[in-house]
This record gives sequence, C-alpha cells and structure tokens, in this order.
Amino acid sequence: MNIPRLSCPRIVIIGGGFAGVSLAKQLSKQEAQVVLLDKHNYHTFQPLLYQVSTGGLEPDSIAYPLRKILKNFPNILFRLANVEAVNTDANTIVTNIGDIKYDYLVVATGSKTNFFGNTEIKQNAMAMKTIPQSLNLRSLILENFEDALLTSDLKERDKLMNFVIVGAGPTGVELAGALAEIKKGILPKDYPDLDTRRVQINLVQSGDRVLKQMSEKASKKAEAFLEELGVNIWKNLRVNTYNGNVVTTNTDVVFETATMIWAAGVKGANIKGLDAEKFTTRGNRVVVDEFNKVNGLDNIFAVGDIASMETKNYPNGFPMMAQPAIQQGEQLGKNLVRLLEGKTMVPFKYKDKGAMATVGRNKAVVDLERWKFQGSFAWFVWMFVHLYFLIGFRNRAVVFINWVYNYIRFDREARLIIRPFKYKNRTR
Amino acid sequence: MNIPRLSCPRIVIIGGGFAGVSLAKQLSKQEAQVVLLDKHNYHTFQPLLYQVSTGGLEPDSIAYPLRKILKNFPNILFRLANVEAVNTDANTIVTNIGDIKYDYLVVATGSKTNFFGNTEIKQNAMAMKTIPQSLNLRSLILENFEDALLTSDLKERDKLMNFVIVGAGPTGVELAGALAEIKKGILPKDYPDLDTRRVQINLVQSGDRVLKQMSEKASKKAEAFLEELGVNIWKNLRVNTYNGNVVTTNTDVVFETATMIWAAGVKGANIKGLDAEKFTTRGNRVVVDEFNKVNGLDNIFAVGDIASMETKNYPNGFPMMAQPAIQQGEQLGKNLVRLLEGKTMVPFKYKDKGAMATVGRNKAVVDLERWKFQGSFAWFVWMFVHLYFLIGFRNRAVVFINWVYNYIRFDREARLIIRPFKYKNRTR
Repeated sequence: MNIPRLSCPRIVIIGGGFAGVSLAKQLSKQEAQVVLLDKHNYHTFQPLLYQVSTGGLEPDSIAYPLRKILKNFPNILFRLANVEAVNTDANTIVTNIGDIKYDYLVVATGSKTNFFGNTEIKQNAMAMKTIPQSLNLRSLILENFEDALLTSDLKERDKLMNFVIVGAGPTGVELAGALAEIKKGILPKDYPDLDTRRVQINLVQSGDRVLKQMSEKASKKAEAFLEELGVNIWKNLRVNTYNGNVVTTNTDVVFETATMIWAAGVKGANIKGLDAEKFTTRGNRVVVDEFNKVNGLDNIFAVGDIASMETKNYPNGFPMMAQPAIQQGEQLGKNLVRLLEGKTMVPFKYKDKGAMATVGRNKAVVDLERWKFQGSFAWFVWMFVHLYFLIGFRNRAVVFINWVYNYIRFDREARLIIRPFKYKNRTR
Repeated sequence: MNIPRLSCPRIVIIGGGFAGVSLAKQLSKQEAQVVLLDKHNYHTFQPLLYQVSTGGLEPDSIAYPLRKILKNFPNILFRLANVEAVNTDANTIVTNIGDIKYDYLVVATGSKTNFFGNTEIKQNAMAMKTIPQSLNLRSLILENFEDALLTSDLKERDKLMNFVIVGAGPTGVELAGALAEIKKGILPKDYPDLDTRRVQINLVQSGDRVLKQMSEKASKKAEAFLEELGVNIWKNLRVNTYNGNVVTTNTDVVFETATMIWAAGVKGANIKGLDAEKFTTRGNRVVVDEFNKVNGLDNIFAVGDIASMETKNYPNGFPMMAQPAIQQGEQLGKNLVRLLEGKTMVPFKYKDKGAMATVGRNKAVVDLERWKFQGSFAWFVWMFVHLYFLIGFRNRAVVFINWVYNYIRFDREARLIIRPFKYKNRTR
C-alpha cells in the first residue's frame, strides 16, 4: 500500500460515519498518522435517507465529501477502500487496495440491514441504509405508479400501489408518514388518470406499539398521527416470507405488493477477524469495555453501532443510533490522545440526549429526559436538530430551502427516476 | 395501450425537452388530447450538465418532473416510454409500453452524441448528454484521483490525471474551464498527498478556434480565459482512435489518458420510420418545412434539435441548441391550435437571441446581435439567463445558493461517488 510510514504511530479508522468522523476530528493535531478508510468518498447523514427515498431531498444534500471534512488536518489521510478482514496477529487489515499496517485500529463500520437470515426477503425487499439504496427505492416507488397506469388489471394495479413497510422504528414511521403525505398531496396531481385513493400504506410491527424505543406517550401520539394520515398500522404481526409479490405473516394476514421495505432491524457490519464468537455478541456487534477497547485485544477499538458496550442501564449495549456513535467517537479520540501521551484513559459515559421522530408536517414526537412533547413544536425542534447536525453550510442551506418550499407548497420535487431500478438491477 | 380514446383529436409529442415542453404548454387549453412521451420522467436542463459532472450542482437541481410541469393541464397525459418506431401509414407509434395511435405526431426527440461511426471511441469515451451520463463522468473523474493515489507507477498516475476533452463547443469549453478550476481550488486540498500540479486538461479541436459558433472576439477571449486557467488548447487536431488508454490523432500528437470526454458533435435522435433518406438530412435530422411539418407527411411535425428547417440564413437548419427548440415548440403549438380551428398556419421565424458560454468565475463570453462582451459582466449575465430559464422556483433557489456558495468558497461540494462508474458499468 502506497501510504508512507512515518515514525509516529499510525491509527487506522475504518468507517467515516458519525463515530469515525467525530473520532478523526479529535486526532487532528496529534503526533500520529491517522488513516481513515471508507467504501464511499462521503459521509452519509442517515437520519434523512427516508427523505431522499420520498423525493423530498436531493441525495447530495445529505452526503458530505469525507476529504473535505479532513482537508485542514494534515496528519489524516483518506483512502477509498473496502475492508475485507483484520489480521490481529500481524496488525494489518486486508482491503481491496492492499494490506494496511496499523498500530492502533478503530472499527467504526456501523450497521447494516438485518434480514435475520431470511434470504428470500433479502433478495426481494428494499432496504434503506445507504444513499444508493434510498435512490433505488425512490426509483421503484415512482416506477410503480408509472406501471400502474399501464395495466388495466385492477389486481395488478393495486399490487403496484400497495406499500408494505416492515418495522415501526423511526425509519419505518418516518417513511410511512412521508408516503402518506405523497399520496395525499402529490399523487392526485401527478396521476390524474389513476385512482390514487387506492394507494395503501401498511406499517407492520411485530411488537405492540410503534417507536418502541421511545416513551409510551410518543408511541401513542405517533400512532394517532399515522392514522390521521391514513397509514394502516399492523401490530403484533410478524412477516414470514416475501417472494416479490406476496407477503405472508404469522397470521392469516397476507399483502399483495410489489414493494416491501424492510426496516425491521439492523446488525453490526462486522469484519472477518473480529467476528469470532469471543469478540461478538447478539446482533453481530463487537464487545468493548468502558474504553471502547475490544475485549482481549490491546490495540483494537470499536465505536458506534458496531460496538456493544454493556452497562447496567444498557445491558445489550447502547441503542444503534447517531448519539452514542458521536459521543463514543469523541471520547475515544480524547482517550487515544491520552494513550499517546502515556496517560490513563477515561471511561465512556453515555449522555442520553433523548430521541425524536417525525411523522409528517407539524407532526413529530420528541422525548427528552424531563420533557416529552408532540405536534408542531416537536416538529420544529426535529427540523432544527437535524439541520444542526448536518455537516456543511451548503447542505444546511439547501435542505432548509427544500423544507421551506415543501412546507409551503405541499410538494417534493425530487421525484425523479434518474437511474431506473426495476428493470436494471433487481439484486443488491 | 391503456389511454382512453376521446372524441377530440389526439396529438402525441415524443420528447419532453425544451421543444416538447414549450409545445405542450401551448396546447394546454385546447379541445385535443395531448399525450407527451419521454424515456425519463423529468425534463433535463442540458446547458448545466457540465456542472453536474464537475460537482458544482446536484443532478436533481437541473431536472424537473415532467408530471409537475403538466399538472394543471387536464388534457395532457404523460407516459414514461421508449419510442421505437413510427408507422406513418397506420398513424401509430411503436413503444415499449405498446402501440399508440395519433392524429397528429410531433417528434421532439432532440439529439444525441455523434461518434461519427467510430465504435471504438463510442465504447471508451465518456459522453455528457444526459444526467446519468454526467453522473458517470463525475464518478469517473473522482475515482481517477482515488486510483492515482494508490499507484506508485508515475506513468499510470499521469494517465489517471490527464483529461482529454474533444470538441471545443460550449460543452467542451465549459467542462475544460470547470476542470481547470477544480485543479486549482479543490484538488490540492482534497489530495494533499498527490502532486496535483501534474493534472493536465487538454481541449482538442479540429477547427482553428474554440466556440466556432460564436464571434471571433468571443473565441479569442475564451481561448485567453482557458489559457489563463492552464487548459492546453489544441487546434486543427483531429482525434482518430481511443482504446481506453491512448488517444491517437491525425498528427504525431498522442495522449495517454484514462478519461476522454467526447463533446465533438451531436446528431438527431431519429426514430425508425422517419429515418429514410427522403426524410432525413446530414446529421440524422428530419427535414421540415417552414411550419415544422415533415416533408411529404401531412400530420407529422418535428421541432428542436431533431428538426432541420433549411432557410436562407441557415442552409443546414438552425443550430442545435435551446433557443430554436423553445421557439419552434411555442410556434408549432400555436400553429396546431390554428390547425384545429381550421385556420392557416404561420411560418416559423427564428429570432437569434445570441449565444454565450462560461469558462470560469468572472470569465464568460456573450454574443448579442448588437453587443458582444466578455468577462465579469458577461459571467453575471450568463448566470442570470441560466437561472431564468431553469424550470421551477426550488431549482432556481438551490442553484443560486450553490453558485453563491461556490463563488465565495471556491468550492464544489457535490464531489460524491454515489454510483461508482469504473468498476460497475463500463458500457453505455
């Protein structure tokens, strides 16, 4: 690998998500060579992916060039690479661009969609964890309506206009709400020659409430919002199979649909060499101690979704979302500085800043530690927080303009089929 | 085909570009069923494609949903379709979604890249006539720099950092200027570990000046601007072959490059049934009379790039650009209304509104009938005109913000490899 070896230690970070980026920033002025690897050349702001899928935002507004984030940090190098394995004995990682030596390794690979071993669902369902996946979903949704116009077979048409979203976490809820708003505000105008009242949005949930990570109050209100928008909520229903046409469940309920979106779970995006039983836990996450150090290894750390730090309040590790990733990245960055300076590391303490989800215009739910609220104000808070955490002035400005425009005009103009999905790449 | 047949005449328009859209708008209140077909569900603002390729703009900002343009016109239907042929005897067109009957047909299929029969170049060069093509080019340019970092073979690295643009019309000139600005303002920061001074931008031209469609003064100034930015201009040089690695020419000059962009010409995007010799002219365009009616056919018209209306001032038809397309679309729309009302049609008169091209910040050339000017003011005029002709408030606002931001920060933030090109789809 064509990376010059310096006399100072080399820290390799795998993954430029929330954890990797906040970690790298801490190391920007250190006597250490930092190498950040990612399979994309951009950071993805995952919480807004559902708006890309539903035409509310351009993909480029929620992506930010990793090289630009690092441009003022001369000790940090970026390489576009797929990491295939880690060799903990040789202190190297194996990538598609060659082997890379490390002194310290930080695994910040995040999570990926968990199909729980169901290959049929994996093959036929849509996922929404990356920008290309979100764009595929955007294309498919729009292609379905174009196709619905062309058939005079009513059953086929209903199938094309039936959307089944599995999993009622924030992603599922936000996507269901956005689709319901599109049904109401955009489809009747875009498809005057189609009876778009027949569009069905089904949100399927194996538990007994939506947003089960949030308060009961938030769940209840979110359900009310969803019902107001016309989303069919299915509780205590478990999806068994999906062959691309029919969804079967653990009950008699069956959905005929051309589009099933799988948002029912994620698992750690683990890499070979750290996937042995001694390192990993349920959900494919790597077990770390209170310093984010991988159990049993001296110079390998894990942060963010991939890391499972088991604490009293969180016996299965912290929730797999942005806040723990950002906080762990920052803390580990500081700890690595301490390590380089020969000081002892400081244990990580998670500060739960609460959770929020949006269902639609003026419809959001926010849980803070001392205050839980819902409705218009929650919606403004949701928007403000998301704008705040977006990286880059231009992205913020463009997202803000889009939101103002969409709000005033009840519109989502990025409903473009730039790369057709259905007939091009029915695999992923 | 599932389009209800009404008692009023049906006008089918193939193509939602400048000509097709301006035509459709004229027919919005008529006693006629209008069916607009396009292979994309959006209108593309082609003059800004080069900014998508060079990371200055998001693709979604220069695309606009065709259904949205038509949403207030209840007599106009849109269908997403690839038109394969026209059967002038049966008055039907053959498409991938079935045959469609017409009473009047308007061909507004525009133009496509002309490789002049050179299949090797067609296979290995990049074109930039559509949004997907422009995104492929964006990915390839960025991938080249990522790859250049990985090789220690200097010759290979130079090849990856050498860009050859063939054709010095507005597209070639604007692309060359944008690449030169990226070389200067972005690459040194993004790739501190790469000697980006070695990046070469070659603009190859078979004629003896750039922008030959414009005034001598504009050509001269554009050349000065390009040289100031460090673009190598090659005149009177004709490209013969390109195998993906080496460009050969009609002289001893040879370029070793991983990226050749072909902007050397366009030809009419003709369809079977109108491509017979009696209908077409040099450059694959359909010959039309002064009413845009195809010679020898009573109910078929052609407008825009595909149409060749031979007049005294333009013996080979009007230039293949936006203005003639917009004006012809509008005029034919009015003429079709007259036709439906039993009135005689009015001959088309082209009003040359001038031409302009931009090379870089504060560097543009504008030719108006009575006034030719260059530099900062020309650049502002160029931006204003392009913003004005963009469709949609949101697109204008987002493009404006991007331009202001890029201007102040010397930046182009959409440098994202969302769909890798090099290793995924080396065919088009």
